[in-house]
Amino acid sequence: MREFLAGERAAWVDRNSKVTAPLDAVYELVAAGGKRIRPAFCVSGYLAAGGDADDTRIVDAAIALELLHACALIHDDVVDESAQRRGAPTAHVRYEAEHAARQWHGPSWRFGEAVAILAGDLALVYSDRFMSGISAELDRLWAELRAELIFGQYMDVRAAAELATDPELSRWIAVLKSGHYTIHRPLAVGAVVAGRPDLAGAFEEYGVSVGQAFQLRDDLIDVFGDAETTGKPAGLDLERHKMTLLMALATQRDPRVHELVTAPQPDLAEIRTVFQEQGIRDEIEAAIGRLVEQGCDALDRAPLAPRWRDELAAMARQVAYRDR
Amino acid sequence: MREFLAGERAAWVDRNSKVTAPLDAVYELVAAGGKRIRPAFCVSGYLAAGGDADDTRIVDAAIALELLHACALIHDDVVDESAQRRGAPTAHVRYEAEHAARQWHGPSWRFGEAVAILAGDLALVYSDRFMSGISAELDRLWAELRAELIFGQYMDVRAAAELATDPELSRWIAVLKSGHYTIHRPLAVGAVVAGRPDLAGAFEEYGVSVGQAFQLRDDLIDVFGDAETTGKPAGLDLERHKMTLLMALATQRDPRVHELVTAPQPDLAEIRTVFQEQGIRDEIEAAIGRLVEQGCDALDRAPLAPRWRDELAAMARQVAYRDR
Repeated sequence: MREFLAGERAAWVDRNSKVTAPLDAVYELVAAGGKRIRPAFCVSGYLAAGGDADDTRIVDAAIALELLHACALIHDDVVDESAQRRGAPTAHVRYEAEHAARQWHGPSWRFGEAVAILAGDLALVYSDRFMSGISAELDRLWAELRAELIFGQYMDVRAAAELATDPELSRWIAVLKSGHYTIHRPLAVGAVVAGRPDLAGAFEEYGVSVGQAFQLRDDLIDVFGDAETTGKPAGLDLERHKMTLLMALATQRDPRVHELVTAPQPDLAEIRTVFQEQGIRDEIEAAIGRLVEQGCDALDRAPLAPRWRDELAAMARQVAYRDR
Repeated sequence: MREFLAGERAAWVDRNSKVTAPLDAVYELVAAGGKRIRPAFCVSGYLAAGGDADDTRIVDAAIALELLHACALIHDDVVDESAQRRGAPTAHVRYEAEHAARQWHGPSWRFGEAVAILAGDLALVYSDRFMSGISAELDRLWAELRAELIFGQYMDVRAAAELATDPELSRWIAVLKSGHYTIHRPLAVGAVVAGRPDLAGAFEEYGVSVGQAFQLRDDLIDVFGDAETTGKPAGLDLERHKMTLLMALATQRDPRVHELVTAPQPDLAEIRTVFQEQGIRDEIEAAIGRLVEQGCDALDRAPLAPRWRDELAAMARQVAYRDR
């Protein structure tokens, strides 16, 4: 992925040396690391399905997923006005600063966001170069996965705007963004490249369960995590009034949570206190445990080699019990 | 194109009725019409190259170009803070108003821009569904075309931020955005689908020349056009300090033009006066005439049927002498 981006950069610099900002923004995000969860599930789904480890098509598919995710993060950070990502300034913040430092004309923030919008578009276009041309079945899956991502993002933004308090809606968004986009579809991409569409059902069941566990952990990290480990400040979802799956479930347990989330200035310390007092944190931990178990049960019923059943079970625990 | 979008909408409404805004934004733009220049060149390039008129792949390719352009316009309108497009409110303005009308939480303008960013992403993803899977050669061309669009947009934004006064840079941007993206590549897509890559050179020469004529006309319309005919207010480029190809050429003729373009509040009436007094308008008209001629000369040397030579020459005149 880095080699490809460096090659593209060199080719464009040959045409005009000033043109690189959108490409640099993609490269910087990708080079900063991240968890690479989607490529990991994609390659694991492929190997679990008996795919040939020497076939480079699965590497291309994994790169496509990571570049698509780069688009999602860069655009999402504009929409959420996030300043930090992967321990570094976000794209729009970085290019806003460059504009200001060079004393260019016009509002610096608007220039920063322009670079970020174009960088996201470029990541989306590049992602496609790695996924296209493998098979018609994969093209369909790829189209579905990308549409799910976009509609999931929209519903996330809309639910926050509506201050929606519908746990079913929060679950629907979590299933779309974390269940399908993050886990189920990457696994399914691997299965399709390996020529094993028969695994689709099991991978969907596993993805939908483990994806919700992943989302709940993400939500818990936003409430209880510390910036040094996570690379971004705590309480960001709360600041944006996001009715996350966690908050939707917690509201059912104690209606005060809803008041706290929808307050003009939500108070993170108070949320933490309510969560501890009411035993909500423990309950969510129990729910995460159940979701991981359900995911593993789906694997047990699937025609998978025991080694890969164990491997995917271990991955479910990894994403459900990570600390960043 | 409309059928496809309506079908997608119905499928998503089945999953969640609240999810449609990004799709509606794409549909509204596409249904509002526009000049359809890129599809027209794509289909003409295909037929000129002897492509079979009953083959639906060329319709798919043309749809892909128009949906990609929808992405470019929706994102560009965010970056340029444009309020009107094709005689209607732009996507971000429309969904900003919806947010305000529903008294949703948070800044309405940010919600409007979020919908527009996601709508552009969706148009980009959908465009790909129509272009992918035709041929590997087309995949490469499609990747190049999309990268040219994004880098062209970036250089446009950057040149305005720098108040750049380099006519070579303005020409480079015009060749990228209007020469390649708008004319040359759509023609080349048609030629590749028809299996006639030998036409690439002639289509490139034609596209680069006619594209600059198209751009100069666009720039003139911004200075002299009226909103009723064009569907958008006059003087927008000027307001944004865009050193268009027109302004770069005019600056070489009279340095006052540079001062007028880079003034904090550029004065459209004054620009018009300088253009008339100095005969700049007539000179630009002469330059447009020469570019159209050069484009037609390239056709004369290409292995094309006389009928299609005439047709493409007529199209060159149409884009160079349109009034909106």
